[in-house]
Amino acid sequence: MKVKLVIIGKGNVGTCFLQLMKEKEKVLKEKFDFSYKIIAIFEHDGALINENGIDLEELLKMGEKFRELTYWKKNIKATELISKLDINVLVETTPTNPDTGEPAYSHIIDALNNNIDIIASNKGPFYLKYKEIMDLAKEKDCIVKYEATVASCVPVLSIKENLIGNEITSIKAILNGTCNYILSRMTAEGVPFSLALKEAQELGFAETDPTLDIEGFDSAGKLIILANELLGWSKTIKDVKIIGITKITPQALELAKSDGFTIKHLAIANVEKKELIVEPRLIERDSLLNINGTLNAIELHTKHAGPIIIMGRGAGGPEAASAIINDLIYIAKKRGHAR
Amino acid sequence: MKVKLVIIGKGNVGTCFLQLMKEKEKVLKEKFDFSYKIIAIFEHDGALINENGIDLEELLKMGEKFRELTYWKKNIKATELISKLDINVLVETTPTNPDTGEPAYSHIIDALNNNIDIIASNKGPFYLKYKEIMDLAKEKDCIVKYEATVASCVPVLSIKENLIGNEITSIKAILNGTCNYILSRMTAEGVPFSLALKEAQELGFAETDPTLDIEGFDSAGKLIILANELLGWSKTIKDVKIIGITKITPQALELAKSDGFTIKHLAIANVEKKELIVEPRLIERDSLLNINGTLNAIELHTKHAGPIIIMGRGAGGPEAASAIINDLIYIAKKRGHAR
Repeated sequence: MKVKLVIIGKGNVGTCFLQLMKEKEKVLKEKFDFSYKIIAIFEHDGALINENGIDLEELLKMGEKFRELTYWKKNIKATELISKLDINVLVETTPTNPDTGEPAYSHIIDALNNNIDIIASNKGPFYLKYKEIMDLAKEKDCIVKYEATVASCVPVLSIKENLIGNEITSIKAILNGTCNYILSRMTAEGVPFSLALKEAQELGFAETDPTLDIEGFDSAGKLIILANELLGWSKTIKDVKIIGITKITPQALELAKSDGFTIKHLAIANVEKKELIVEPRLIERDSLLNINGTLNAIELHTKHAGPIIIMGRGAGGPEAASAIINDLIYIAKKRGHAR
Repeated sequence: MKVKLVIIGKGNVGTCFLQLMKEKEKVLKEKFDFSYKIIAIFEHDGALINENGIDLEELLKMGEKFRELTYWKKNIKATELISKLDINVLVETTPTNPDTGEPAYSHIIDALNNNIDIIASNKGPFYLKYKEIMDLAKEKDCIVKYEATVASCVPVLSIKENLIGNEITSIKAILNGTCNYILSRMTAEGVPFSLALKEAQELGFAETDPTLDIEGFDSAGKLIILANELLGWSKTIKDVKIIGITKITPQALELAKSDGFTIKHLAIANVEKKELIVEPRLIERDSLLNINGTLNAIELHTKHAGPIIIMGRGAGGPEAASAIINDLIYIAKKRGHAR
């Protein structure tokens, strides 16, 4: 059978996902005996709907003009249609409001109530209402995957399965590429925070309003997801002590350097101390977490085998899209729709 | 039901595995509804056999005197008994002959012919006869897991599943802790190879006969397993170009350092160039593979998401034992013997 997909959000991640699905269509069929049709793609102002399957080649050729396609329906909302369409998996990629998790949260709840498996790429719903979502998923026997929400394509959530006979006792991570880029530049060049931020903005590594990144909220949201998934907690972002990087000076970095240390913006979850912290911390210069640039790095301390560290790109459309495809194959295998 | 296990080899890894299984017995039951009995433990000169399940507490208390237990049978060989015992999973931890892969290879083939799933911790059989083993496993519908053979507890083989929708195009890795320790010390202290090796031997990081490590054979064996598993190849160790670290001088390291580089002993598999190489290579000093000490690090270059790097301890009894337990839970879940 063809797995029936609905995508909500046709921004950067959503579009990259569609491109990659088209590109990999043959491989997915050959390698996993997996085939699919995309029956709807929702945007904030309407939707592309074709229950026979949207022609991705045609759609992708249209670029930003996709609203000109005959099967574009104006002003239709996902919440009105989810219960009416016959869907296997809903892929949620809308930008979320950091305080409410909306509209993603409602889409997820709605889909679960209709027994639809979920893949989500935005973390809002999970750092705000993890327990509500997971409880409902369990009740409805639905699978919810969200690898892309933390460190994008780096499989730091699904790695739980690979370490299943071990025990993760603490997490120490660099989860925000913008902060890490800024601190790396301040350390290397001795420039003040404001200048490094400006440079990051010019290079596209930082948003025009960088508050969520530099004040630590982005890292804190990801930390909650890591802790809930890997340590079995049910916390929300309110449980994190958060300090951003805006008060770090080149002088502080210089001082750290002269003692063989450096300052990194760390996200820490510690089982023993039951603490969740995002703050600038001194780490030794030869620490494995002393990475430069926009990479993310996650150190999992395990009971039986010491630290295991995994790192890679923490952002980017194709990166998130590839994480979504990993989640999709996982779900398809579990459901017997892929081998 | 209780999963029936047989262990071959009661050396460091085998014993650590038994300890960990005893320690985790309750957790495995509660968390995964997994229970087991160990019905035989083979050593080179006999076996402990109890079809009702060996009492691990009693056994572990005996330490090296386990041959005094009433159910010790002298001179019994695994190959004579595997076909006669009712076994679900065979755990192979014997030291293997690097040229023949024996006795592990025969144990594995024998078990597969009797439809028994396998977990192995020694790499010999896999870098020598990967295809033979995997073809037979497929024919017999058996699962063969061997995470501990490469980078021990670091889940670099099973990570394939986490990246299933992506595509790994090359592998670059540090796979031998002894070599990396020696090179790290030579770089940091400017000492010659012979002195760094002696230090590594005194600290227990290098064997009395370190040939397999310092000449690159150990890394090459692991590289073959990585390439076969992650890239879908069917190579053997004969396909690897191997150069060891014995000719590296403090002067060469100094020269590299002054240009912003360092020398690391890398294992490389490249799909495009179809090459398999183990040799000393210059890498930039801020490369993520510039790790010190005895750690292992594996960089997987992926088509859709750039590099993903994973690192951790590459050796040690408890580390290998925890990898075996991960494999065991994997098999038990697949077979419906764990949830």
